[in-house]
Amino acid sequence: MKRIAFFPGSFDPFTKGHADIVERGLNLFDEIIIGIGTNTTKKRYFPLDLMTKLIKGAFKDDGRVQVVHYNDLTAKVAREHGANFLLRGLRNTTDFEYENTISQVNRQIVNGLETIFLITSPDLAPISSTIVRELHSFGQDVSQYLPFQLDKPEN
Amino acid sequence: MKRIAFFPGSFDPFTKGHADIVERGLNLFDEIIIGIGTNTTKKRYFPLDLMTKLIKGAFKDDGRVQVVHYNDLTAKVAREHGANFLLRGLRNTTDFEYENTISQVNRQIVNGLETIFLITSPDLAPISSTIVRELHSFGQDVSQYLPFQLDKPEN
Amino acid sequence: MKRIAFFPGSFDPFTKGHADIVERGLNLFDEIIIGIGTNTTKKRYFPLDLMTKLIKGAFKDDGRVQVVHYNDLTAKVAREHGANFLLRGLRNTTDFEYENTISQVNRQIVNGLETIFLITSPDLAPISSTIVRELHSFGQDVSQYLPFQLDKPEN
Amino acid sequence: MKRIAFFPGSFDPFTKGHADIVERGLNLFDEIIIGIGTNTTKKRYFPLDLMTKLIKGAFKDDGRVQVVHYNDLTAKVAREHGANFLLRGLRNTTDFEYENTISQVNRQIVNGLETIFLITSPDLAPISSTIVRELHSFGQDVSQYLPFQLDKPEN
Amino acid sequence: MKRIAFFPGSFDPFTKGHADIVERGLNLFDEIIIGIGTNTTKKRYFPLDLMTKLIKGAFKDDGRVQVVHYNDLTAKVAREHGANFLLRGLRNTTDFEYENTISQVNRQIVNGLETIFLITSPDLAPISSTIVRELHSFGQDVSQYLPFQLDKPEN
Amino acid sequence: MKRIAFFPGSFDPFTKGHADIVERGLNLFDEIIIGIGTNTTKKRYFPLDLMTKLIKGAFKDDGRVQVVHYNDLTAKVAREHGANFLLRGLRNTTDFEYENTISQVNRQIVNGLETIFLITSPDLAPISSTIVRELHSFGQDVSQYLPFQLDKPEN
Repeated sequence: MKRIAFFPGSFDPFTKGHADIVERGLNLFDEIIIGIGTNTTKKRYFPLDLMTKLIKGAFKDDGRVQVVHYNDLTAKVAREHGANFLLRGLRNTTDFEYENTISQVNRQIVNGLETIFLITSPDLAPISSTIVRELHSFGQDVSQYLPFQLDKPEN
Repeated sequence: MKRIAFFPGSFDPFTKGHADIVERGLNLFDEIIIGIGTNTTKKRYFPLDLMTKLIKGAFKDDGRVQVVHYNDLTAKVAREHGANFLLRGLRNTTDFEYENTISQVNRQIVNGLETIFLITSPDLAPISSTIVRELHSFGQDVSQYLPFQLDKPEN
Repeated sequence: MKRIAFFPGSFDPFTKGHADIVERGLNLFDEIIIGIGTNTTKKRYFPLDLMTKLIKGAFKDDGRVQVVHYNDLTAKVAREHGANFLLRGLRNTTDFEYENTISQVNRQIVNGLETIFLITSPDLAPISSTIVRELHSFGQDVSQYLPFQLDKPEN
Repeated sequence: MKRIAFFPGSFDPFTKGHADIVERGLNLFDEIIIGIGTNTTKKRYFPLDLMTKLIKGAFKDDGRVQVVHYNDLTAKVAREHGANFLLRGLRNTTDFEYENTISQVNRQIVNGLETIFLITSPDLAPISSTIVRELHSFGQDVSQYLPFQLDKPEN
Repeated sequence: MKRIAFFPGSFDPFTKGHADIVERGLNLFDEIIIGIGTNTTKKRYFPLDLMTKLIKGAFKDDGRVQVVHYNDLTAKVAREHGANFLLRGLRNTTDFEYENTISQVNRQIVNGLETIFLITSPDLAPISSTIVRELHSFGQDVSQYLPFQLDKPEN
Repeated sequence: MKRIAFFPGSFDPFTKGHADIVERGLNLFDEIIIGIGTNTTKKRYFPLDLMTKLIKGAFKDDGRVQVVHYNDLTAKVAREHGANFLLRGLRNTTDFEYENTISQVNRQIVNGLETIFLITSPDLAPISSTIVRELHSFGQDVSQYLPFQLDKPEN
């Protein structure tokens, strides 16, 4: 059986921390589907189309990585895409407490859907999408935190 | 490439929580090697031979599970047994902080040796080997915490 | 002196985790008042009237449980209802840090108002009102998380 | 039914933090039994007889408080003394993770034995028996941390 | 070289916990600049002008303390004011995880900008600006939590 | 007034993580005294004389760093050496909870002795003396974790 993982997130933006999890996950999974959750009530900072294009570009040479959008329950969408695993990164204890809760519920919603965790590489652990957005909004160059080139905002 | 995981621990005793991680891990790995670390300076409560026999018995119908002993660095032993992954369960934030540290060092010792984490099922999370030993030492029946039958201690 | 506990929350919705705390709390307290905090600036997902009716229904056979609404400081309202204790459940360390803070302040506001904590049963710990709302909003059946029957949303 | 709580610990020594929990617990319970666990394999710093006498002295005017010794499973001993509750203080997240585990197991060993938690008053939270022992061993006056007078060690 | 620390926050309101950090920080730093971050998208509860006046008043006798406003990246503003350190208080593990992340990023943005941490005095740790705002909004006297006199809200 | 910090630890061994704290601390303090606590009841892995020589060697070009031994209360020793601050690194929440407790007590023992915290650089956070000892005991080269050259153990 093929091992397919669904890697969910809002990825606003997708950071080097996220890329680290995908790359390390490819040692374990035959295929990884990056699922960009689009919550209609929460406005994105980076446009969905731009982010999708950038993530696709970052993995364009690796046929094992796909990028999709979704606006439904993560567990259901993962199953619909044929994934038998969820993949998540853990940076710290706050992440752990949150993921602990979510992963148990996901196993109940889709029977046996297992979440596999990697711990984020320590030098990348301080990077969060929230911080990158804040840096970017003040005109800071954020390219060191991203796995692709983003045009610097104009002030 | 075959995905082989090394599941290290002192397993004094091996609990239902450990069995839960192995069973769920078998969805992900082709083979799991349960490695009982034998630290010569730390006296075991349950004899090594007994525990080995009991664990082997619990998985005797599944050719994908092996049981070994070791007294060396976990990462080196895992590599020597052909494992390309370590498998660990996370019960709570105390576990997380400990595993965070260890897993980074293991990646450095054996380049690229990745630790894969599952979160322990909530109803099994309160079980620790330490507690089982204490219960057993006071003559308490601990069979509800173990995946095999253990003779009740005589008082 | 009668021991009366005030069990505050937004209960949007009231889950099996909340019911677990109330039921276990009834071994300790003579009376428990479930206080639904209604914050005028925060829109509820489940209507207040519906939730009140459902909670009352769940405890209709136990004269020791009351359900009230309030829009004021929890400690003051507890005192006004004659409660000498607050009752709270703890699921994880994130809950602990939050409750630690709140409980100290409540003791200062109403001199000696003590908060009593129970740790949520492990199989119920992953359930949060936030997750139940999300599941429900995507048309998922959430009855396994609730101590009463809720009509399934129509898609 | 009388509400009787068992307050277990090694109390080596019993600190102002412990006294705080007992005193606040007396608002909730009709009776509190302070149980000094005596683990034969762990050598005490403060002699058991001395500590017992000092604790008894601290509560000699309150007939609701008893002091006992035990060397068995806490849950069983609590039940044997007629206690229907365990009482514990929580100082921080490390305490929480530990107590979370223990309390679930105690409910299983003695069906329905409930652990009730109070959060230690913030000014007393930094006091641990371990620190008091260390201070005392270096000849430091520790009376500010204890609810009774202890003779200062001679240097 | 003069040691100048920038103490950033939204200070809505500035509490005794904040004042504790500034006062203790003055043993270490030659000068402390209290920086009130003004985020245009987040509405303040206490007006910026009022809070600025109150904080200035609290430190009016100490020429080493300045108060400024800013709406930019904290690290950049700190540097522009000549600060070579950021100063932050830690109340609990939730604070720690957040500050851990932010401080690493601040060192990257402004090369070598070091964040210095003090742990909040335990009796002040339960005070948060969020709680003070909530108490105040319900007409509660909050003067015990603030280092200055605030007019009591009218009900 | 000169700012002198005492940096206490057992340093068995002194790691790159410790060196990171000292080096960053030198931006803040005029002088740092590295205090190697020698607890007579706890056997060292690396001999005290060797470790002292190695640490001194690592800082031999910086007159602001001293190395001393002590076997007494940290706070008292710090004061005796003229230090007005303790310096400590924080790696994770487990460290935080421990240091929170200790630092409050140290302020009480020596009135006003303040502990200043730096957060360990993320790439060095996984390094602990315990892990280095274990690696070394199994014949692993640990030079990447130490700020000085240590002869490799012979097997």
